[in-house]
Amino acid sequence: MVDRYLEVRGHSHRICAPLKIEDYVVQPIVDVSPPKWHLAHTTWFFETFVLKPFKKDYREFDADYSFVFNSYYEAIGERVKRPDRGNLTRPTVEDVYNYRKYVDEQMVELLQGNLSKELQNVVELGLQHEQQHQELLWTDIKYILGNNPLFPAYSTEYIYREENISEKGFVQFPEGIYEIGYKENDGFFFDNEKERHKEFLNEFSIRKSLVSNEEYLAFINSGGYKNHQYWHSDGWAWVRENNIEAPMYWYNIYDKWYCYTYQGIKEIEAQKAVCHVNFYEASAFATWKAMRLPTEAEWEVAAEKLIWGERWEWMNSAYLPYPGFKKADGAIGEYNGKFMVNQQVLRGASVVTSPQHSRITYRNFFQPNLRWQFTGIRLAK
Amino acid sequence: MVDRYLEVRGHSHRICAPLKIEDYVVQPIVDVSPPKWHLAHTTWFFETFVLKPFKKDYREFDADYSFVFNSYYEAIGERVKRPDRGNLTRPTVEDVYNYRKYVDEQMVELLQGNLSKELQNVVELGLQHEQQHQELLWTDIKYILGNNPLFPAYSTEYIYREENISEKGFVQFPEGIYEIGYKENDGFFFDNEKERHKEFLNEFSIRKSLVSNEEYLAFINSGGYKNHQYWHSDGWAWVRENNIEAPMYWYNIYDKWYCYTYQGIKEIEAQKAVCHVNFYEASAFATWKAMRLPTEAEWEVAAEKLIWGERWEWMNSAYLPYPGFKKADGAIGEYNGKFMVNQQVLRGASVVTSPQHSRITYRNFFQPNLRWQFTGIRLAK
Amino acid sequence: MVDRYLEVRGHSHRICAPLKIEDYVVQPIVDVSPPKWHLAHTTWFFETFVLKPFKKDYREFDADYSFVFNSYYEAIGERVKRPDRGNLTRPTVEDVYNYRKYVDEQMVELLQGNLSKELQNVVELGLQHEQQHQELLWTDIKYILGNNPLFPAYSTEYIYREENISEKGFVQFPEGIYEIGYKENDGFFFDNEKERHKEFLNEFSIRKSLVSNEEYLAFINSGGYKNHQYWHSDGWAWVRENNIEAPMYWYNIYDKWYCYTYQGIKEIEAQKAVCHVNFYEASAFATWKAMRLPTEAEWEVAAEKLIWGERWEWMNSAYLPYPGFKKADGAIGEYNGKFMVNQQVLRGASVVTSPQHSRITYRNFFQPNLRWQFTGIRLAK
Amino acid sequence: MVDRYLEVRGHSHRICAPLKIEDYVVQPIVDVSPPKWHLAHTTWFFETFVLKPFKKDYREFDADYSFVFNSYYEAIGERVKRPDRGNLTRPTVEDVYNYRKYVDEQMVELLQGNLSKELQNVVELGLQHEQQHQELLWTDIKYILGNNPLFPAYSTEYIYREENISEKGFVQFPEGIYEIGYKENDGFFFDNEKERHKEFLNEFSIRKSLVSNEEYLAFINSGGYKNHQYWHSDGWAWVRENNIEAPMYWYNIYDKWYCYTYQGIKEIEAQKAVCHVNFYEASAFATWKAMRLPTEAEWEVAAEKLIWGERWEWMNSAYLPYPGFKKADGAIGEYNGKFMVNQQVLRGASVVTSPQHSRITYRNFFQPNLRWQFTGIRLAK
Repeated sequence: MVDRYLEVRGHSHRICAPLKIEDYVVQPIVDVSPPKWHLAHTTWFFETFVLKPFKKDYREFDADYSFVFNSYYEAIGERVKRPDRGNLTRPTVEDVYNYRKYVDEQMVELLQGNLSKELQNVVELGLQHEQQHQELLWTDIKYILGNNPLFPAYSTEYIYREENISEKGFVQFPEGIYEIGYKENDGFFFDNEKERHKEFLNEFSIRKSLVSNEEYLAFINSGGYKNHQYWHSDGWAWVRENNIEAPMYWYNIYDKWYCYTYQGIKEIEAQKAVCHVNFYEASAFATWKAMRLPTEAEWEVAAEKLIWGERWEWMNSAYLPYPGFKKADGAIGEYNGKFMVNQQVLRGASVVTSPQHSRITYRNFFQPNLRWQFTGIRLAK
Repeated sequence: MVDRYLEVRGHSHRICAPLKIEDYVVQPIVDVSPPKWHLAHTTWFFETFVLKPFKKDYREFDADYSFVFNSYYEAIGERVKRPDRGNLTRPTVEDVYNYRKYVDEQMVELLQGNLSKELQNVVELGLQHEQQHQELLWTDIKYILGNNPLFPAYSTEYIYREENISEKGFVQFPEGIYEIGYKENDGFFFDNEKERHKEFLNEFSIRKSLVSNEEYLAFINSGGYKNHQYWHSDGWAWVRENNIEAPMYWYNIYDKWYCYTYQGIKEIEAQKAVCHVNFYEASAFATWKAMRLPTEAEWEVAAEKLIWGERWEWMNSAYLPYPGFKKADGAIGEYNGKFMVNQQVLRGASVVTSPQHSRITYRNFFQPNLRWQFTGIRLAK
Repeated sequence: MVDRYLEVRGHSHRICAPLKIEDYVVQPIVDVSPPKWHLAHTTWFFETFVLKPFKKDYREFDADYSFVFNSYYEAIGERVKRPDRGNLTRPTVEDVYNYRKYVDEQMVELLQGNLSKELQNVVELGLQHEQQHQELLWTDIKYILGNNPLFPAYSTEYIYREENISEKGFVQFPEGIYEIGYKENDGFFFDNEKERHKEFLNEFSIRKSLVSNEEYLAFINSGGYKNHQYWHSDGWAWVRENNIEAPMYWYNIYDKWYCYTYQGIKEIEAQKAVCHVNFYEASAFATWKAMRLPTEAEWEVAAEKLIWGERWEWMNSAYLPYPGFKKADGAIGEYNGKFMVNQQVLRGASVVTSPQHSRITYRNFFQPNLRWQFTGIRLAK
Repeated sequence: MVDRYLEVRGHSHRICAPLKIEDYVVQPIVDVSPPKWHLAHTTWFFETFVLKPFKKDYREFDADYSFVFNSYYEAIGERVKRPDRGNLTRPTVEDVYNYRKYVDEQMVELLQGNLSKELQNVVELGLQHEQQHQELLWTDIKYILGNNPLFPAYSTEYIYREENISEKGFVQFPEGIYEIGYKENDGFFFDNEKERHKEFLNEFSIRKSLVSNEEYLAFINSGGYKNHQYWHSDGWAWVRENNIEAPMYWYNIYDKWYCYTYQGIKEIEAQKAVCHVNFYEASAFATWKAMRLPTEAEWEVAAEKLIWGERWEWMNSAYLPYPGFKKADGAIGEYNGKFMVNQQVLRGASVVTSPQHSRITYRNFFQPNLRWQFTGIRLAK
């Protein structure tokens, strides 16, 4: 447990290693949090939900931090309003790393003792929580640098695996009753993955691989962003109000398409999976193709036959409780249930998802207009 | 067909009979349209989708009206932006009634001839469309008068049937595969009710009758609007930003609760169904009761055993396409599909729903924050 | 006094004679009030400040009207928020005319008696107040009809005198001490015209006539709206945010300029005074001409040698108190003083100013971005 | 000139010495710029207006910086929108100090040569410009730290001179013609101080010293923020929309008033000059006292008999051009003239004004709602 704890915590530091102090501080849009804030907030989680209740004589690092780094737990009291996170120059980055060091030392002490099942569960939740924020660290850093007019590279060496899309076939499934949701004794899970339950599905086909940049370019070139008939009403309003013409981070320079990457501006690679599209774009693309997006039940049933893991994939499913869903008691119970309205489900995982932080039953969710995650498109029919 | 046409069209006139000319014109919030606009827009529908394509030598009443009274059909071209509807003093109310008269005469002529199946379908769609707007006429008139600081009555005679809630028992259903959706040859339906399909449901119980004012008052009195734990995150933000303390149209005067009705301000009646709550309130109430809202499949399966028809009931289901859903071609196809994101399903019907305009498979939908419809709460567990 | 009272009050009715009931109700932008509201508010003024304090046993017409038709007198208590005026369908237009009739009868009774000096003063203030609203009636009606996509004419017969601009010469004045402000015993005045006081002016020249449409077109054609250097910083922001390319009510159709008038859409007349420009436009035009706008002291000194009365003319003077300015006591004191920040002075009068409601010392004022009044440009150097 | 140049430039560094890197980056409100931006922008001014035109073979430090650090000079081309300044994490603080070092070296080289009159003037303008930004550095740093919920001190040692207000008498001036504005050959001036010209003033009295915290507390305690009659209409709207109850940085803790200072939170000192009030508050206070604010001509005439220099003092004068005002040609000409609308004049200087950067003819200006400068109140009658 100590090893795993230190491994996960250290991964956050590795993600931030190439950053300048300035990069840790800002919040260019409300959905993007300052990297400093992620580092502190995940630490606050361990302090509040593990060290304070479980470690004898634990001395809080700094009482003010509770107020400053509580993200959304209403049950824990007052908090800094989300859009103001980017105005907090203090505690400094150095303070935050000291906070992490202090909490890590205390956690290691605690974890070397005998661990009750309850304690193990909360620690595991804290690690999963940190991994979720690691993914946000990646995407928020990309946003901060990618919206700077100088387009600085995060690192010129950063390479993540992206495979060419070669396999465009579909897999077919017969109608019938299928089971989805977390299978008992299958390791960690979030409350929203329960209860495992039956769903009746009609016959369906789902594409093995994701939609490529080349396929998405065909949509753009055929006037996809100019024709209302492919779009939801809200999506069309979004396109027109924001003059959208392409995925986020795409730039058309002298009639060639480029995009911002962690290594700076690069030409679009035709055979890679399209990225940084929102639900409206994913859905409009599918309509243009005379197909549709899959539901989350279909995806989960089919997952073992799919090539997945590079993009979070937009489902045509709203984020709703499974039959028998129960919120945990107390502040931890605020984790998932309170977001079950106005959000769309995403399935899969992305190139910046932390290792061991993906599984077939995982339910991610975002508002349908957001694009700063590594989101992509899978087709069904 | 002529009789039915005239009956439906006449009903719109009867709803507006007690109005002053001034009441026809205004749009106090973007969701509420001027009554004049409803009368003209439903007429424009018949002119555009029936008379122009189907009546030989039809002469348009006034070419400008297409622009002014097209509500949202992008395929039909330019239109007045929705929030500006309330600034159009011309065409006048008299003009609009003349427009109705002209179109009705032309329609009657057309309907006295031989009607193709296709024509019959479009006329029926136009009548259903008019009935939908009749319900909006009722709710928009209530909003216009109920938000006037003088609280004028619509009519001191207006009485609609509202029954006391006596039956508070639950009906139980076993787990199994159920069929929902429009049953072939069962009369008119909207495209969103198709395809009829199977769903697997877990065992569930659903209350026979709606939640009463008395029950909702207990929620208010126990601090329901002051405790975040009952609310969705978006719902809690809505409560706090708008200082919400009760359903729409409720006023607390010297510690007694009153509400605005079509007959003016009246004391709350404890045994009547609570009304004018939004999805957030319905859901918070259910959580406070340690229950939940039903899904639309549960509701449809149970409907024959329920007392329903006075309130549109908020479902814990997002508005999504049924398996096999197909949009109709052309402008008519914009009717339902493009709204299938960011909306919540309502089932049932309300005291102001037009006669013959309700059925068990009917799927209504609104954004979760809206309250000006006659919306209520049904519990499940 | 009775004759004058009835003459002024009747003029409001004559202005509204061609209106449809619908035209009386709406408020398309916050600066434009519904005609119904003007008619009621000016009546409320007589009821509140004349009849209630001065007429024995006066019985209020309707207690609710105080709340509904008080415009901005904080001292008189609660009032309907300004942007909500256009949502009040009741009291109806007929109610408002009955209100006017009742108050007029009571006023005539009162005015037939012996009138104290104080009473005479308040009645006169009420009449001047009504005349101010008559001008707003004209401009608000123009806005309501001129922003309707059908461009209905107010009346096809309406003609007001507009002279061609022939005289483009300048009048020169030597430096020296001049007196400006209301001259004792010179008839009615507003508190903002006092005290008469001395100002030292440098030598200046001021053009006899206003700027013509033809001259303003030259500014447009030379790229005046595309070059930041002619504009104030706030003005340039306004141009760019609103994509402004011409005065209000101007439309470019197939490369010819038209404008909306009380008779409908008409071609621009080159030799008439340019109209419906705001302070930013007036100032940018003057800068483009390498001249400037006059100050209000210069204007008042020069007025007898100028051709004026068709446009309110933007001054390069902020609206500030004259030396020795005193607010009246009580609610009447709210009339002018509280607006003495963030407003620009206008001098002159316009084609829709009521007869006898203009004089050389009159100080009008508006925010610098507004254009719906009959505003024009005079040059100085 | 070299000495003066280095002295002024070094002062900016001394102001920033106690800052953490994080403090340099953020922009909590649009009026407050990041300290990093001030340091870079003042450097950009020297590069753009001095080095590029005047230094032979000058090599630009980095072409991108022109875009990033141009504040408002439209003539120089594209620029980062003002509200986005706080999202620029790159160039880093270190980059900016390197930029300053490079430009300073180049400037010193240039200044050691023969300097034309024109060059001297632009260098002097650059230094005055830097001094203006030094004052903004002080006030923006105060805002950044003072709005952090931890209220960190800028420095526990920072002490500036503030004198107790002892002298409350008035000085009287007779009516007559006075001269104001920049006197030829009196050192540096901004274009807005010209031309020196005559004004006729009525007899007036002006208080020797500023209003104290104690006097302002009496205004608060007598309900000054709760009574509309003291306020301009716009001021009253500002009070109510923002629930204002005291000057900026004031906090009422257990019935005692504290304020944030550069040393952290401290109790209010009764005999010091009130600070961080806007024009609306200054004007409401004067009205409550049955007095008024002075005009800028009165202030300039009286200045030698006044105790001034601790607060910028709100004048009851709008910021307008003096008679004969001429904008300079080119980008430099954008300096002052384009702000001459919607702004109020301030006279004097403040405790954070740079040494030698104040004079009797200096005209400062801000929008009437702003409070983050060291603004105070002087009374006249």
